[in-house]
Amino acid sequence: MKAICLLSGGLDSATCLAIAVAAGYECYALSFDYGQRHKVELLAAVKIAASLGAAEHRVATIDLRMFGQSALTDDIEVPKGRTVEEMSGEIPLTYVPARNTIFLSMALAWAEVLEASDIFIGVNALDYSGYPDCRPEFIAAFETMANLATKAGVEGVTRLRIQVPLITMSKADIVRRAKELGLNFALTHSCYDPDVDGRACGLCDSCLLRRKGFAEAGLVDPAVT
Amino acid sequence: MKAICLLSGGLDSATCLAIAVAAGYECYALSFDYGQRHKVELLAAVKIAASLGAAEHRVATIDLRMFGQSALTDDIEVPKGRTVEEMSGEIPLTYVPARNTIFLSMALAWAEVLEASDIFIGVNALDYSGYPDCRPEFIAAFETMANLATKAGVEGVTRLRIQVPLITMSKADIVRRAKELGLNFALTHSCYDPDVDGRACGLCDSCLLRRKGFAEAGLVDPAVT
Repeated sequence: MKAICLLSGGLDSATCLAIAVAAGYECYALSFDYGQRHKVELLAAVKIAASLGAAEHRVATIDLRMFGQSALTDDIEVPKGRTVEEMSGEIPLTYVPARNTIFLSMALAWAEVLEASDIFIGVNALDYSGYPDCRPEFIAAFETMANLATKAGVEGVTRLRIQVPLITMSKADIVRRAKELGLNFALTHSCYDPDVDGRACGLCDSCLLRRKGFAEAGLVDPAVT
Repeated sequence: MKAICLLSGGLDSATCLAIAVAAGYECYALSFDYGQRHKVELLAAVKIAASLGAAEHRVATIDLRMFGQSALTDDIEVPKGRTVEEMSGEIPLTYVPARNTIFLSMALAWAEVLEASDIFIGVNALDYSGYPDCRPEFIAAFETMANLATKAGVEGVTRLRIQVPLITMSKADIVRRAKELGLNFALTHSCYDPDVDGRACGLCDSCLLRRKGFAEAGLVDPAVT
């Protein structure tokens, strides 16, 4: 069975890919150069795809800066030092409009061409940092739409599934599962605002959630030491 | 009210934009440079957006060739001289995988940034040339998904609508409506396989459906004379 696996280069998407590989899928990893302010995560994605044995890895270019309005693509300051409560209280400045919808749509195109049965995306609804397009009800609606959008929907050949193995996991659960699967944590990059050498800032939402996850799992994070 | 209007440069999307303008929307036209074999339609889109008084027109670049498998993006021959029955019998070679899903997703991103209430797309279910992503059930599923994908869905501010004013119209209906709205047909381009000077081939599915529409509406098509 073939699967498209969205791979940002972060801990979650890397763990998601590891889960798909462990489940026996022939994995086609897909990353995006979407005008993000730093490319560290794309370099991480290349190494992760290779280390986990993806059948292929492609980087698609889409300029999401043309619509603007996110701290991940624009000159808006990335929020630092927030508590988990503050993170979950509102949609953060790092939210990129419709990003997961666009990424899943591109994955859908590749899935249709490869006749892949599954698309894996590493969203989770617990430590989701307040993004609307990480909710289970969004994923379910996307799956329904995807099956009407494509040849599969017309010909009734294969029902495409959107797989979200991390959806109900805490960050600590993700760290533990990744550890079991032998993921090389040092290859992953989660920070929204790394320095020029690609080192994590340690204070953005993504860094703080990651640190909390490792702490709760009782593990040391080799990527930030 | 603001609306995003997908604009390919063809007769249908131009008519759709004209309908949105006539309905009083402030229209933001969006076209795509998606690796299509000819750019004639993009030049047409620029002229149409200006002539219909769009508030803004942007062209987004997305390389759909990276996934391949369509006569519109690859070196696959565009089918010629088919009957309407042949066209509706199967999904044609000109189908680009997940194209409308990707285009609508990009429109969704812009809609969220502009706080637009509507997205207009000129699909129609009658003379739809066999594309799965032109069916009403696909559009309805996309609208449901879109409202879960975005800030609007979380905060319950505005319910985004996907408007498909051409969905039940025949090509002749579209020609008549466009005429009423004063669309300059000569600016539109429908052909899948124009010559080097941008002239329509007259034999592809799109040319044949357009010709049939003008004939049934009792009008002369200035773009192919």
